[in-house]
Amino acid sequence: MKDVFETLKKQVNRVGFGAGIHDLLFTAYQASAATLKKHNRVNLDSKVDRKSYTSFETKGKRLSRPINTELFHDDDRAVARLLRQLLKGDRGGICADDITRTLYTVAISFCAARDLTSDRDRKTQGTFFEYLCGAVMEATLGISPVRKLPVLNLDLKGDLPTDLVFDLGNEKPKFHLPVKTSTRERIIQVWAHQRVLDGVYGVGRFLAIPLVLTETKLDTRRREVVEICLPWQWRLYQMHIASLWNVCYFDIPEPYRMLDTVFPRVGVSTVGEFLAEKGRLHKLLQAHSVTAP
Amino acid sequence: MKDVFETLKKQVNRVGFGAGIHDLLFTAYQASAATLKKHNRVNLDSKVDRKSYTSFETKGKRLSRPINTELFHDDDRAVARLLRQLLKGDRGGICADDITRTLYTVAISFCAARDLTSDRDRKTQGTFFEYLCGAVMEATLGISPVRKLPVLNLDLKGDLPTDLVFDLGNEKPKFHLPVKTSTRERIIQVWAHQRVLDGVYGVGRFLAIPLVLTETKLDTRRREVVEICLPWQWRLYQMHIASLWNVCYFDIPEPYRMLDTVFPRVGVSTVGEFLAEKGRLHKLLQAHSVTAP
Repeated sequence: MKDVFETLKKQVNRVGFGAGIHDLLFTAYQASAATLKKHNRVNLDSKVDRKSYTSFETKGKRLSRPINTELFHDDDRAVARLLRQLLKGDRGGICADDITRTLYTVAISFCAARDLTSDRDRKTQGTFFEYLCGAVMEATLGISPVRKLPVLNLDLKGDLPTDLVFDLGNEKPKFHLPVKTSTRERIIQVWAHQRVLDGVYGVGRFLAIPLVLTETKLDTRRREVVEICLPWQWRLYQMHIASLWNVCYFDIPEPYRMLDTVFPRVGVSTVGEFLAEKGRLHKLLQAHSVTAP
Repeated sequence: MKDVFETLKKQVNRVGFGAGIHDLLFTAYQASAATLKKHNRVNLDSKVDRKSYTSFETKGKRLSRPINTELFHDDDRAVARLLRQLLKGDRGGICADDITRTLYTVAISFCAARDLTSDRDRKTQGTFFEYLCGAVMEATLGISPVRKLPVLNLDLKGDLPTDLVFDLGNEKPKFHLPVKTSTRERIIQVWAHQRVLDGVYGVGRFLAIPLVLTETKLDTRRREVVEICLPWQWRLYQMHIASLWNVCYFDIPEPYRMLDTVFPRVGVSTVGEFLAEKGRLHKLLQAHSVTAP
């Protein structure tokens, strides 16, 4: 599995997030699904309202990260088929929930399988998740992302390193996509980066779409799962630092989903609700006469 | 050493950063110095201009974090004497460089000793550093810090969790002290927190004084030390997010020190330059007619 990942990494560095990495994403997912099947599945004690979690376990009693049982799809052929369709940029006929379940299953399978095979590594999981998100967004928008932006402003000249940035072109939206397997208090960085983009390029030019896998935390001794959420801080950040356009969750925490419905609002949705055929992204692109591929 | 730390932690939770923890800070420092003396000191290959670094090593070849040889004072009785004076809030007759060396030696001794005795832990080191900084600032300002601030603003009511906040009172400066053993790209959080304080309470009410131990990074295989600095990003953050008043380093990186001299400026100094008898803190307090203890 580590080998597939290393090949994928080299290929991303060479060709980016386009069709050239799709087969490797499949291979990585299939290897992950196969790894998980070789291990025991154990139930966890979920302290999260209306969500149940499971985990895989090695013989040495090492646990993978928690997996949301409702979102996890263990028919890997069905997952592969839907993933292939999404990577063609085709969301036709796939409902929001199926998009979320498919992408969640691919992401969490890789992360959990890697948890089982390596004790300390957390970086590989985060990088794979970024590749998956980059590939899906590139397929959906039909353009490649960049990772830095030029700053040219009187005596200030240089490059500003960024998360993935998708630029639809002149007088069209530009998207800023921080990708994180979980955020906790580190989420403030996303607002701060948005503030810098607002300051350097003007408010409203970049729309932030953070993509986040989950906010679960596992107590391995007690086998308890909790979600770490800071909705009160999110509201202060949205009012006082910058405005994030839409935070997309693969396993959405209810305290954050609520922020989508209060005033002033922080846009929060599942990744499926965001990407679906008549979803938020579609509506925005339509409003700006952007034809997706 | 772990025992002393646990006692210190309990005591901080009970009585805060005042005189009640001074003896424990000494004991922790002395235990650290004794631990280091039992290990081999090895030279590291410093890639940092005009700085040399050393490390301690266990028999199993585990290395401590790098120690700046110029700042590290191995006469532990002299260090203890100066620390005792600083913890009385008395900087009389101690030059800026001696303040920096004393505080650097106490902090790095604990961190390095803990590196040698525990493989994975990094949290204990960060917590000890925070206690040391909290105690020195409490002694210097003669007031205790808080860790949260009330927000009372139309329908927004609650507590905002913060780093250490020292409030000198009505119409006097309020200080906001993030404490970090190193920052790298995470430093943007400090600007973001300052922005929230500016937004909620008004620009200029809180002065940010981040206290940072070092920005070194050790390649354990090659035994090479580098400093990770992002001065270009710091300038953008200072212009576009918020204004930090004075970043205090225990082992100051030259690329950041330069920011103190360009326009627009980011205030950066050693902790000694900041705390010394006629230093920056003194000048500010004098300007606002604050009598330090």
